Amino acid sequence: MFTFCKEAGQDSTCGRAGRFLTGHGEVLTPAFMPVGTQGTVKGITPVQLRDIGPQVILGNTYHLGLRPGDGLIARLGGLHRFMDWEGPILTDSGGFQVFSLADLRKMTEEGVTFQSHIDGSPQFLSPERSMEIQRNLGSDICMALDECPPGQLERSKLEVSMARTTRWLARSRAVPLKEHQGLFAINQGGTHLDLRRRHLQEALELDAKTPFQGFSVGGLSVGEPKEAMNAVLAEFVRDLPTDRPRYLMGVGTPEDLLFGIEQGVDLFDCVLPSREARHGRILTSRGRLNLKNARHREADLPLDPACSCYTCRTFSRAYLHHLLRCGELLGFTLNTIHNLSYTVGLTRAARQALLENRFPAFAQSTRAGWLTEEP
Amino acid sequence: MFTFCKEAGQDSTCGRAGRFLTGHGEVLTPAFMPVGTQGTVKGITPVQLRDIGPQVILGNTYHLGLRPGDGLIARLGGLHRFMDWEGPILTDSGGFQVFSLADLRKMTEEGVTFQSHIDGSPQFLSPERSMEIQRNLGSDICMALDECPPGQLERSKLEVSMARTTRWLARSRAVPLKEHQGLFAINQGGTHLDLRRRHLQEALELDAKTPFQGFSVGGLSVGEPKEAMNAVLAEFVRDLPTDRPRYLMGVGTPEDLLFGIEQGVDLFDCVLPSREARHGRILTSRGRLNLKNARHREADLPLDPACSCYTCRTFSRAYLHHLLRCGELLGFTLNTIHNLSYTVGLTRAARQALLENRFPAFAQSTRAGWLTEEP
Repeated sequence: MFTFCKEAGQDSTCGRAGRFLTGHGEVLTPAFMPVGTQGTVKGITPVQLRDIGPQVILGNTYHLGLRPGDGLIARLGGLHRFMDWEGPILTDSGGFQVFSLADLRKMTEEGVTFQSHIDGSPQFLSPERSMEIQRNLGSDICMALDECPPGQLERSKLEVSMARTTRWLARSRAVPLKEHQGLFAINQGGTHLDLRRRHLQEALELDAKTPFQGFSVGGLSVGEPKEAMNAVLAEFVRDLPTDRPRYLMGVGTPEDLLFGIEQGVDLFDCVLPSREARHGRILTSRGRLNLKNARHREADLPLDPACSCYTCRTFSRAYLHHLLRCGELLGFTLNTIHNLSYTVGLTRAARQALLENRFPAFAQSTRAGWLTEEP
Repeated sequence: MFTFCKEAGQDSTCGRAGRFLTGHGEVLTPAFMPVGTQGTVKGITPVQLRDIGPQVILGNTYHLGLRPGDGLIARLGGLHRFMDWEGPILTDSGGFQVFSLADLRKMTEEGVTFQSHIDGSPQFLSPERSMEIQRNLGSDICMALDECPPGQLERSKLEVSMARTTRWLARSRAVPLKEHQGLFAINQGGTHLDLRRRHLQEALELDAKTPFQGFSVGGLSVGEPKEAMNAVLAEFVRDLPTDRPRYLMGVGTPEDLLFGIEQGVDLFDCVLPSREARHGRILTSRGRLNLKNARHREADLPLDPACSCYTCRTFSRAYLHHLLRCGELLGFTLNTIHNLSYTVGLTRAARQALLENRFPAFAQSTRAGWLTEEP
């Protein structure tokens, strides 16, 4: 079991700095996890990724189970060796992708039958199969399989779905994992605070028998208004056990990270920083910057003068603008290095501020920076 | 002027090891130059490129003149700074691209009017304009502008074209370059040995007044039979001045490099290693390997067990096969690192063999390796 150690927190926010030990090293929180969907953080080598310095990265159970297959990865020594990442890896359950990517789903109590988005082949995912894939991948943190209802599902249907997720949670929990692997519970309930609390109670009943190593909040940032998401987080995160890591799934923007940290979230993941990078949308300490804009054509300054990543240390906006205009692969790589460095760096700086008891001032100055006119 | 110093050669072949000093460092020959068409070797950072270790890289005058524009690059401090490559850079004249990429060309004695392949805008290239672009880029080695006739042009038309190239050579020579820049003459003549010799004589007459810093052989590997190219090289390369570097343009495959080195060529460039890499066609000491082939799906061995590049040190064929099947950007990068490492390494090993007076044995064992069954 991961031992979550809270190192610092503040009276004025619920924000907390902590750490926990996994089979592949310690995780210092709060932490943002870059997404390596298909066994690679898109466009980035492991050497470049180590330089960016994330505490954990994420792999996708759905994608890797389909291609190249979890059995193959197991035979080759597991995901860490396959992709040359020796640090901690978290895998999701595959549920979210089945419900967002795959075609022709058929739900039963047993699991979900679907067609692969790659070749249309028939596939089956159940709590047991999700655990099997994650065991084969050998990730350090595994997620229990949940049913992922659409963001605005009506309350009565949502309750039916959540009851199934609770039953699946028990089945996931019953599957033996490898010794170094820990399992996180998943909480659903949309933006209904009472449903989330009831769902958490059900998980805690399971937890009392066999503890989970962490708690994830799913089903947010899936199309609901930002205010509704934030309202739930502001009330709900503090209900989660304090002695285990708390993971807000699929979130998010720099603004979302800062808000989540304030509420006491420890872990985040999102494709946004890397996906935006490939389109030339750059995250900076002065807010967002559209690299395609003609005003960067001759700009002899870095993407973010306050950033010390490889891209900002080495290249001008003019060069990066040129690469983007030409569709050059290197542009995707360099922009990704920056956006991930910025996002990982934001959580690292937040952690430092928490440790030094100055988080509210840090949050205020960070938000003020985003509102400053783009340099 | 570059001082070419021949360090070693052999009686049994014309192959030679040499070196010459440019404004951005010494070039050890024979050397293969990776192609950085648009100010980037596709998919590779300068850090990765330094690790591959080429002696010189190539930039394209045609592409960079059109986009982002040579004036912009000059204002930003030149191509070396723009792309963060502090080693020697050779730029071509732009002639080959005008004749292969651009539309609606109109030739006059003054120069060639054409439409940009990017936006159709009207453009003009002349010896003076080519020199101006290369001066703005600040490359170390510049090429005189030549007319690039199609590979199988009939002899009488070829002679007319070559006469113009000679007149353009004189005009290129007359344009002042920066102090650190050297100019190479260009030799045409297709597969006609007598025409190439006559063309060389014309260049040497110019050379007697103001010396060129090197001699390039153009117009080969443009569709003619390989035997015809090799027959010309076998006779012609030895006619080139021995005290200046010799550059065989747009060549080539590992087989072509070995043959060219045997004939006394010092410099090569080609997009083949990097372009093939992006399609999963891998160059190895055991010949070519098609990474898409299903038999690599579970292969837990490097692309080339004899190679020590980052890709071969770190990743299995199974992983690289997976990236290629998924179309992941990282696959392009890792395969390019290998193919360029292999090609640059081949010229480096050839140089070492020349220095140690064992080139014929080296060439023989290298060729035998290519015929060995793929591991």
